Parts: sequence; structure tokens; C-alpha cells
Amino acid sequence: MTQMTEARKASGGGFTPQIMRVAERERRTPEFIRERVADGRIVIPANRMHTNLDPCGIGRELTTKINANIGNSALSGCPGEEAAKLRIAVKYGADTVMDLSTGENITEIRRRLISLSTVPVGTVPVYEMVAREGASSISEELVLRVMREQAEQGVDYMTIHAGLLSRLVPLALKRKLGIVSRGGALLAAWMKETGKENPFYTAFDKILSICLEYDVTLSLGDGLRPGCLADASDEAQFAELDVLGELTARCRAAGVQAMVEGPGHIPVDQIEMNMLREREKCADAPFYILGPVVADCAPGYDHITAAMGGLLGAYYGAAMLCYVTPKEHLGLPNPDDVRQGVAAFKIAAHAADIGTHKPGARERDDAMSDARARFDWEAQFSLAIDPDRARAGREEAIRESSGESSLHGTEFCTMCGPEFCSVRLSAKLKKENATAAAQ
Amino acid sequence: MTQMTEARKASGGGFTPQIMRVAERERRTPEFIRERVADGRIVIPANRMHTNLDPCGIGRELTTKINANIGNSALSGCPGEEAAKLRIAVKYGADTVMDLSTGENITEIRRRLISLSTVPVGTVPVYEMVAREGASSISEELVLRVMREQAEQGVDYMTIHAGLLSRLVPLALKRKLGIVSRGGALLAAWMKETGKENPFYTAFDKILSICLEYDVTLSLGDGLRPGCLADASDEAQFAELDVLGELTARCRAAGVQAMVEGPGHIPVDQIEMNMLREREKCADAPFYILGPVVADCAPGYDHITAAMGGLLGAYYGAAMLCYVTPKEHLGLPNPDDVRQGVAAFKIAAHAADIGTHKPGARERDDAMSDARARFDWEAQFSLAIDPDRARAGREEAIRESSGESSLHGTEFCTMCGPEFCSVRLSAKLKKENATAAAQ
Repeated sequence: MTQMTEARKASGGGFTPQIMRVAERERRTPEFIRERVADGRIVIPANRMHTNLDPCGIGRELTTKINANIGNSALSGCPGEEAAKLRIAVKYGADTVMDLSTGENITEIRRRLISLSTVPVGTVPVYEMVAREGASSISEELVLRVMREQAEQGVDYMTIHAGLLSRLVPLALKRKLGIVSRGGALLAAWMKETGKENPFYTAFDKILSICLEYDVTLSLGDGLRPGCLADASDEAQFAELDVLGELTARCRAAGVQAMVEGPGHIPVDQIEMNMLREREKCADAPFYILGPVVADCAPGYDHITAAMGGLLGAYYGAAMLCYVTPKEHLGLPNPDDVRQGVAAFKIAAHAADIGTHKPGARERDDAMSDARARFDWEAQFSLAIDPDRARAGREEAIRESSGESSLHGTEFCTMCGPEFCSVRLSAKLKKENATAAAQ
Repeated sequence: MTQMTEARKASGGGFTPQIMRVAERERRTPEFIRERVADGRIVIPANRMHTNLDPCGIGRELTTKINANIGNSALSGCPGEEAAKLRIAVKYGADTVMDLSTGENITEIRRRLISLSTVPVGTVPVYEMVAREGASSISEELVLRVMREQAEQGVDYMTIHAGLLSRLVPLALKRKLGIVSRGGALLAAWMKETGKENPFYTAFDKILSICLEYDVTLSLGDGLRPGCLADASDEAQFAELDVLGELTARCRAAGVQAMVEGPGHIPVDQIEMNMLREREKCADAPFYILGPVVADCAPGYDHITAAMGGLLGAYYGAAMLCYVTPKEHLGLPNPDDVRQGVAAFKIAAHAADIGTHKPGARERDDAMSDARARFDWEAQFSLAIDPDRARAGREEAIRESSGESSLHGTEFCTMCGPEFCSVRLSAKLKKENATAAAQ
């Protein structure tokens, strides 16, 4: 039983609690949600073992979701730090988190994250397989064993690179940057070494059985996503997308929820085309994209290059954006990087939702504008995506100015001071106008 | 004599040194540049008194430029700090700077900035008028006196809100946030108080004479730009744009170079329309936009909200982006805010140029991708928009990892470590492929 199989049952009020909750959060009718869960255009990742989950819907017509990747590596991170990253990610607006741990204590880190998380938790099972048993131990048996263990633990969605068939590897090796997906590269190396086909593909029906049992949503990974602008929209990328389209259809036929993952690195002028192509090839399955980065020359600022691409992706139909942090291309993100990445992507998702007129999307902005007009600084901070940073910014500016102590709560800021404050001048003009009209 | 009047002279090799330099920087022929300077589609702000200028061309078909606003306010900043901001702005990629000082020592700050600056320097003369003589002293006489003084000092371009006619003020007072342009609000208040027409408009022909004499480029300011998403693309904004179109034609008839300024705050779905409307109403005069911000609820991150809008604006035809810093809506930016704002906008401008296929735009990114493929960290840092931050990011990650000392110069980063490094795996596969092919 999955959200999809339930949604397909003859109606008469039979909405799952998860569908009801998503409808409420999205300001849509339960019918609207159920219809799309039934045909696969919306997914609600909700493993029945993840008991403290607040369900979240993901689909092109819903508000844009953002995911934060956390997790350790062999070189960095520890269970306590990953829990801290989870807290920060959710505080600043992450709708889901993925535990991408590849270092020590993977099982324990994940158990703890799931027990703490009210948002859906995703994983990439091949990481645990390789971290625990080594890259050469990859097999269908190991795939199924690790996926079942993770499903039992309550993982809501799993990325599997089942579309990376062995015949596609040579296409990717022609590129400037080859294969930049970790899971994709591990599988390609294993296929090359063993001469066998991708075990996530050959075991796909058995994987579907596990997903059906726990209601694990599959996130069909793009092992051949481009790793730089020069490799974007190439033959390898689109050949894999075709396979993901077939796998989407197999998921739907089985009643398993599925998303499709996308790039990565795309020049601005190719983003709309990429979104439309996925929609066509994968029958409008929720598109879950990584960034995309729109410039390759800004390490240290890749949360910005990627949030820019994410905004465009979401505006043109992506359902969920995987964040990128300032550490991308440089190292493992720390908690402050997580905060910056989540904030940048929350902005991208929100700005896209305003642009596509999602229900209620602009209310928060309008409330902010009203608070600005009346110089209500506390309201401005509380409406901000990152209230702490907004407050810190004003306080820093006041500290750096001449008249420090007298400036808190004033009807201007240190940018212009009172005489040059346009908002102040404008309020005065409006007031005079109103007075004149009343007389 | 201006770049425009020179460009219009019968040809035979008569290219100004400024046109030759812009052609070189843009990888275009001198003919390409001259033709567009002659008809006004490209401006080269180059006051003949600004002797250490490295000329820069601004136009839709050229690479996208970015401007950094610096300057003090009555509450913050000092001459030494403004010089530091100039250095930082230019270091990280500002193509022009505007000195928006409204506090003490305006004349001296500007003199120093112009003498130090190899990039064009812009101002908003009404600020100096009001800072020196008070808002009630605004008059045609003061406009002409201050503009002449600034022109003699070598200011390359000046923003004047000449399109804000008194009849337009009531339209703006209907808005949520009224008039948010400082110059616009000051002029509207003065017009309301005195019952007179905007002196920048009534003295426009005399202003053109000053500009002709020194080759000052006019930047026709949008005093009625929207101050929030709710006010975007309204009657006030577009009525002023129509006046700016008329003023552009008067500039061109006089041989004076002119840009047009634009918003501000625009939802994503209205940006393309705004760019096309300016192009039509102002006969393709270079459009110089502020941001635009695409979400109003992210104070502390407005360099990001605005760089997102700037990317779209440039992609759809804006010629220059005025940066916004993380302090926007909170206070006066300090040097670190300047750095963050410039970096975010350099990314936006560059990503747009890649998207519109400007000559050579992607070369730096391709070189970066090659450096990534061969783990050449030093090359990656030197190709980065902000080399210091890129290096600091990798070093921080190494510091935070387990094996600190051994990691510098390695062929992986702390994100994945050696076993999970896709770039490393991919390089190995490529090498094996090449070896097999050679045998």
C-alpha cells in the first residue's frame, strides 16, 4: 500500500491523512492532490515507518520544495554535527533532507536523523553499500539488502541510478568532466570492471516490491548529469533521461511513487528546454533538480550560481530543488554553509512561486512591504526568511554608524539617514494627500 | 564634443581611442562599436576630465556591466572607507562605481574617488544639492551649478530624475510603498511644496549643454521605480518610462550620451516584459537596472534576490546591473557587503552573457572545468570570480576534516574523500578507455 495505490481507489471521501495534510499546506482541495498522486504528477514521500513525519507534497503544480543534503564523509562530520545540520536546514526552510553520509556510522546517523526529522528523509543507498562493503562488493543482493534495511528504518525516498545503463557509459566518457555523480561514477566503474549491467536496473522489479511494502518513493537519479556547462544537454544526459522515462512508467504501473532527478550545470538559455524535455519524457513526474549551476567560475559562491538556476528551473516546472552550498566544488559543507545554502534556495523557490502565481505565494512579501512602509522593524525581522540575519544586518549597520545608541527603532536606516529617507518622505506625502482629500 | 558626436563624423578611420579600447575589450570591431555609439545603443561614459579612465562600453549587445554604489551617509562612512570600498568593488569586478554620498565632505570624497578610479564614476547630483544646501534650496540654478562643478571634477555619468513630472506624483502615492527612489522622493516633496515643475526637466536643455561640454553621459533616473513586488509594472512606473523615452530622444538629438534606469522590484514573470518595453519606448538605449529584487522577504540576502533578477534582466537585454548588497533595506553597506554584492552581480552578469552567447563568455568556465578535471587547485582559485573566497573555502574544509595536514594538493576534496570522488573515478575510466583505444 502506497499513497499512490490509496489515491487510486474508488473515491467517496477516502483521502489519506497525508493527502489531507498536503491539501491544507498547499491551499488546494484534497481532490486536486489525490488526482495527481494517483497518476504520479505529485508524490508524497512518506515511509510508513517514519512516524513523526509532517507530510509534504512534491509536484510541478505545488509550491516549489527545496532539499538540503547533509551527512558526513570519510574525512569529515560526526553524528552530532549531522543532527545540528538537520536542525538548521529545517529552521531556514528545507522541505526535505537527504542523508548522504559516506563515512563512519552511517546506519546510526540515519536512525537518529529519521527519529528527529519531521520532514521527509532521503538517501542514496549505493553510498552505504560502498562505505560498508567496498565498491567491488556491489551486487543485486547487496542492493536489495541495503534498500530493505533503509526502508525498515523509515527512509522516505531513495535515489537510485537505475537509468545509467552500461551502454551509456562511453557517451559520458567523451565529456570534459565525464561522470560527476558519485553514485553514477561508482556504478560505471563497477560495470566496466565486471562487464555486468547496472544492478539497480536488473533488480528493478524487486526494488519496486520493497518500495510498495514501505511506501518508499523512488528518486530516479541522473548518474549522467553534466558536471560543467560544456557538458550540458548532451547525448549522454538525454539518453539516460529516456531510460528514466521508461522506469517512471514501470513505477507507476506498480503503484510506486517516483520522482526524476535532473542537472546540475546548465547555461541559462537551456534551462526551459531541459524542464520541458523531462516533463515530456517522464510524463510530468516531479522533476527534482540539483541547482543547476549557471556559471562554473564562482567557487565559494555556488549557492548563488545554483540558486539562480534553481529559480529558473522551478519557474519552468521543476518541483523540487536540491540546494548547493558555498562549499560546493571545495569541500564538505559545515552548519553555516547549510544555512546559507538553504536560505538561497528558499529564496529561489519562493521567487519562482511568486512568478508562477502559486496560491498565496506573495502574501509574505506584501506583509513585508507593509511593515517597511510603517517602519515596523520587528515585523520585518519576523517575516524574513532568515530573521537572525536580518536583525544582525541592521544592528551591524547601527554599530558602524555615528549615533549608535539613538538609532534602534527609528523611522529610517543608516543607508540614507532621516533627511534622505524616501520611505519617510513618501509616507509624509501620502499623509498630506489623505488629509487634503478629507478636507 | 562627445563620443557620440565623434562617432557620427564621416568615417575614414576616425575612431576615438575610447571606441578602439571598447572594441578590444568586447572582441568586436571598431565599426561595430562606433555605429552603436553614434545612434545611442552603446554609451561610453568618459568625461574628458577623468584622465586615468580605462573606457568601458555599455549596451545590450556588449557584455553585461555591473555598477557598485558606494559613498557615505549622514550617519556612516568616511573618505578613507569610501576609497577602500572602491578598491574592493573594482577588485571583484565592478565595471563602474557610483558615489552616492549624502553625508559630510561630498566634494572631497568624489575628488579622491575619481583620481583613484580607472572605471567610470557616476553620481546623483541632487544628493549633493540637498546635502550641501538643504532640500528647500532645490532650483534650476542649483541644478546647473552642481552639475557643472561635478562635470569639471570628471564625473563620467550623472543620474537625474528628469522624467518625474509633477503630474505623475499622484499616481505613485496610490502605491503600497509610494516613491522609494531617494532623488525621486526629494523632488516629489519639493514639487508638492513649491507647486513648481521638476527643475531637471525644465532645465533639460541647459543640462545638455553641460554634458556636451565635458561628455557627461546622462543616466535618466527612474524616480518612480516600484519599491516592492506589489507596486511593480504599474501606471506610475510606465508613465515615467514614456517621459524617459522622450528625454532619450532629446539627448540623442543633442549628441549627448544617455542610459535609462529601471527597477527595482519585479516578479520573475514580469522581467522580460519590462526589458522589452524599455527597448521599445527608449529606442534601445542602454538599460541600467537596479537588481531587480524578485522576492521581498529576504532582508540580509538581497544581494541574492537582486542578482537573480539581474541575471534575468541581463538575459533579456539590460546593459548594466546596479548591484544590491546584503545590507539593502537594513543599512549602509560596509566593505564586506560591497564585496558580496559585487561578486553576486558579477556572477549574474557573467551567467547572462553565457546564456546570450557573448563573444568568449564561456572561456573562463571551460578553463575552470578543465582545471577541475585535473585537480589543479591553484588554477581553480585563479580562475575564480573571488579567488580569496574559493581558497578560503577549501582551506576551511580541510581544517575541519580529520587528516588536515595531508590534504593540501590532493586529488579529491573533503566532500567525498578519495573513494567516493566521482571526478577521480571518471578520470580513471577515461584513462583506461584511452589506453584500450591505443592498443
